[in-house]
Amino acid sequence: MAPLRLALAQVNPTLGDFDGNLELVLGWTRKAAERGAHLVAFPEMMLTGYPVEDLALRQSFVTASRQTLEALPGELVAAGLGEIPVVVGYLDDRPDTGSANPGGKPSNSAAWLHRGRVVARATKHHLPNYGVFDEYRNFLPGSTLSVTRLHGIDVALTVCEDIWQDGGPVAVTRRARAGLLLVVNASPYELNKDDVRLELSSRRAAEAGCPLAYVNMVGGQDELVFDGDSIVVSESGRVLARGPQFAEDLLVLDLDLAEAKPGVAAATAQPTPEPSSGIQIVRTEISAEPLPGYPLDPGPVAERLTDEAEIYAALVTGVRDYAIKNGFRSAVIALSGGIDSALTATIATDALGADAVHGVSMPSRYSSEHSSSDAADLADRLGLPYRVVPIEPMVAIYLANLELTGLAEENLQARVRGTVLMGLSNQYGHLVLAPGNKSELAVGYTTLYGDSVGGFAPLKDVPKTLVWRLAAWRNKSAEEHGRRPPIPDSSITKAPSAELRPGQLDTDSLPPYHVLDDILEDYVEQDRGVAELIAAGFEPELVEKVLRMVDAAEYKRRQYPPGPKISFKAFGRDRRLPITNRWRERVKPGS
Amino acid sequence: MAPLRLALAQVNPTLGDFDGNLELVLGWTRKAAERGAHLVAFPEMMLTGYPVEDLALRQSFVTASRQTLEALPGELVAAGLGEIPVVVGYLDDRPDTGSANPGGKPSNSAAWLHRGRVVARATKHHLPNYGVFDEYRNFLPGSTLSVTRLHGIDVALTVCEDIWQDGGPVAVTRRARAGLLLVVNASPYELNKDDVRLELSSRRAAEAGCPLAYVNMVGGQDELVFDGDSIVVSESGRVLARGPQFAEDLLVLDLDLAEAKPGVAAATAQPTPEPSSGIQIVRTEISAEPLPGYPLDPGPVAERLTDEAEIYAALVTGVRDYAIKNGFRSAVIALSGGIDSALTATIATDALGADAVHGVSMPSRYSSEHSSSDAADLADRLGLPYRVVPIEPMVAIYLANLELTGLAEENLQARVRGTVLMGLSNQYGHLVLAPGNKSELAVGYTTLYGDSVGGFAPLKDVPKTLVWRLAAWRNKSAEEHGRRPPIPDSSITKAPSAELRPGQLDTDSLPPYHVLDDILEDYVEQDRGVAELIAAGFEPELVEKVLRMVDAAEYKRRQYPPGPKISFKAFGRDRRLPITNRWRERVKPGS
Repeated sequence: MAPLRLALAQVNPTLGDFDGNLELVLGWTRKAAERGAHLVAFPEMMLTGYPVEDLALRQSFVTASRQTLEALPGELVAAGLGEIPVVVGYLDDRPDTGSANPGGKPSNSAAWLHRGRVVARATKHHLPNYGVFDEYRNFLPGSTLSVTRLHGIDVALTVCEDIWQDGGPVAVTRRARAGLLLVVNASPYELNKDDVRLELSSRRAAEAGCPLAYVNMVGGQDELVFDGDSIVVSESGRVLARGPQFAEDLLVLDLDLAEAKPGVAAATAQPTPEPSSGIQIVRTEISAEPLPGYPLDPGPVAERLTDEAEIYAALVTGVRDYAIKNGFRSAVIALSGGIDSALTATIATDALGADAVHGVSMPSRYSSEHSSSDAADLADRLGLPYRVVPIEPMVAIYLANLELTGLAEENLQARVRGTVLMGLSNQYGHLVLAPGNKSELAVGYTTLYGDSVGGFAPLKDVPKTLVWRLAAWRNKSAEEHGRRPPIPDSSITKAPSAELRPGQLDTDSLPPYHVLDDILEDYVEQDRGVAELIAAGFEPELVEKVLRMVDAAEYKRRQYPPGPKISFKAFGRDRRLPITNRWRERVKPGS
Repeated sequence: MAPLRLALAQVNPTLGDFDGNLELVLGWTRKAAERGAHLVAFPEMMLTGYPVEDLALRQSFVTASRQTLEALPGELVAAGLGEIPVVVGYLDDRPDTGSANPGGKPSNSAAWLHRGRVVARATKHHLPNYGVFDEYRNFLPGSTLSVTRLHGIDVALTVCEDIWQDGGPVAVTRRARAGLLLVVNASPYELNKDDVRLELSSRRAAEAGCPLAYVNMVGGQDELVFDGDSIVVSESGRVLARGPQFAEDLLVLDLDLAEAKPGVAAATAQPTPEPSSGIQIVRTEISAEPLPGYPLDPGPVAERLTDEAEIYAALVTGVRDYAIKNGFRSAVIALSGGIDSALTATIATDALGADAVHGVSMPSRYSSEHSSSDAADLADRLGLPYRVVPIEPMVAIYLANLELTGLAEENLQARVRGTVLMGLSNQYGHLVLAPGNKSELAVGYTTLYGDSVGGFAPLKDVPKTLVWRLAAWRNKSAEEHGRRPPIPDSSITKAPSAELRPGQLDTDSLPPYHVLDDILEDYVEQDRGVAELIAAGFEPELVEKVLRMVDAAEYKRRQYPPGPKISFKAFGRDRRLPITNRWRERVKPGS
């Protein structure tokens, strides 16, 4: 056995900001060196950010990635950091072996840097092409396993999906008799994925026959949020160390690892083909001699967040990074007095600070008394700049010039509000945050170009029942910290209403939200059909009605702003359905 | 040699309308039988429509497809059509061999139906996962080649992409010594693709060693338009018959084909593995005896449309089918007097009829005299229902209640117009058509929730210079048919202006459109970087400015309505880029 001090840098790159991401690597490598680490690892696609989508198909972008990678070893030496090996993810336009690359696609790669040189390279073998991922579209798969000898320990390097699929790199790691399996990741958050990742890491460590170190990205990128949560597990599946969720961090620990076997060759010029998988083992040597023993530091195990705290942190991270990385310094939100806008404003305040979040109340003739008072109360509790813009004059003049009635008149009110918000956005440079939740978006209970306007929609993937849970949790958490709960009780307890006509309630058009959300969980997240829903105990006519609403609202979802994914299946690239679609889940006649 | 009368049914299914699509098959099979055809072939995914996207992952949908397929042979017999073999595309949830299907994905399949039974099945082997296609996401690839003996001729059946990729099914077709290669397709239109398809079909016929018959879908499905253009080519690449573009049709012709070789087995229970590709040949026999000779009918070769006629037909098809298949009976369009709205209204009129297209002029204080008069002139020429809604009263009341200036005031006008249009849409059930062109959308020269509102955007993929070409072509075409040109000359010749402030011209913010469109062609369609653009002769600062505008407008494009793809690379699923993206194509300092 031989010791190794490992540092996992779970950091927050910005997509396409090669200079900034290089600076991040330099800064966190310095911290790792100061902590005495013998190896520091950064996430998948650290230099580019993730996902790059079709930027992978633009040669200038790929070249910039490779040039940044090639410049980095020199920069590390210049910063006095040449001695510590650095593993970093990037995009490379060369195949990882001499094989042909007719499509000209780049690879999702990670490199070992040491003493001013790129000394080894690993390329992602399994390319995810499901859910939010389009990697088969954008990348060429790798066909090698990189094994690098460092202080007498053989470290196998793989990328993210390589441990999510059976066979391939993990099996080859065992046959390569590696002492450590290092996995670099850009694995997006969704609820309960931390448990899945832990179970997966433990299983793969056992299969690889060595400890596994998993480093993940942090931060928001459009609809994805990366939660960090880096993990190191022993071969037997025991958690050795774990990083925090949703925070940049350097996870440092000492490992006691199996030394490379005497019979195994070190650096070999020729790749060794591995019989069953077709994956070639490519070995590199940085240093063959084990380090002398020293007292090992076991490393921290960060406490887990509760489900509510975890989701809330994901939403705050998503809003903060969307705003900051796109150059917004402030946001504007329509405050209706309802729970959705109250929670949205609270998230925005936690993300950007109260001074940066502008609340606007836009009462109409149908607004109840409590709408304005609850909105004002919320703004007061959060300390937001707040103004009131009554929409009656604008609505009246449209109605005087156009013959709008019924639904057209209802939607008009929402669109006047949307126009006011966008005017303030254009005038002051605020990012407009749309308050709609996933339940509303599912059934189309939203006005296109009305309450749906915005650059970002924090609750887009949050069902209404979860909105309530998060609001209650946020208030309780404030109380526990001796602070005033931000969300007025009345906003939590009142019956939901769009207030677009007298006495209107959401339940006029929709089933109660706890029923609706159960149906949506089955239909949207699990892709179940009518028969399965009825078998699950839902009332047939209700199921048919809700599914019809969901199908018919696809066109609205296409024009909805992006928002952070927190569920197994978010609207957007996670669930790709046609607008034009005559297929309707039907209860069979007579059933 | 043996004769065969082949019918290719290039028809227009509706996505998810299993009952309607089955009726289409019955109706066109009857026509084929009446023409004495010995075989009728329908497009890829005929029973489901194409592309089904993630409906492929919903078991209830896949089951409905397979059940429809299984019901069809009986329906054909009941209609007295059991004798003519029918080839039809559909979605199947069973792997095409006994191999495992762990992901549970369905297959993109086509079946032979005859005398009340499904007698053979082919499954797409190559799954496109580029451009607009996500088939690797949604389908399991096939691993067999279906060869069916009909009247002594071995007919190999493949699906679409199988002939776009080298190797695989085409090579196996030659080794199987087939007498005819039948290819069923759902191949979306783009400019010049007809020439590519013809060249490809000829090349693959030579490789397969037999004539090739290519049947393609017709009609619009969201952003895709299928152009028909079915082709039959000889082994030497000669065009034997060709269907019309953008029209349903039954292409019937007699072929003189090589008889099955005596040494080749007919129906075999065991698939024959093909050595190099891993594809197994599965043989079926419908009838071994060649037909007696009869006078062969060579079949028609439809005339090709010019580029302008072809694109125009694609746009009309896209608008017509989006409206009809989504249940709209009418459309509303803002008429500004400019060329974009004039062409949009003309396309809509050709698609839906003049009575169904409602023109609205919404002059502001900045509108020039000719704006209203040109709009009225257009409506008169097209015979549209037409009204004028001045926006000054609405704009004034917002300005009285909000401190909007500059760009915020300009955008306000566009948003008032958007609100008026949406009000009319809600009140009367009109589909709103957005008039924006590809050049504007590329550089973000459009107001979110203003001129961009709509359910469909006919010119979304049409660059401004092509808008002018199409308008001129449409007028000329009218003249040639002795009709009044629909688009006022003044709309074609005036300098483009958004008219949101006094004397505003597009060229205040943008380069001349012929320059802009050249840059966009290189950057958007070809994914070229700054260096390549400068090498192509463009002025560096201009390139940098335009590219920056394109990158910064990604968020607007995400919320834009769908519109028909006509180019190699349309905005939307064809070009998937992040919104949050610090990467900027830059001219290097000193270059």
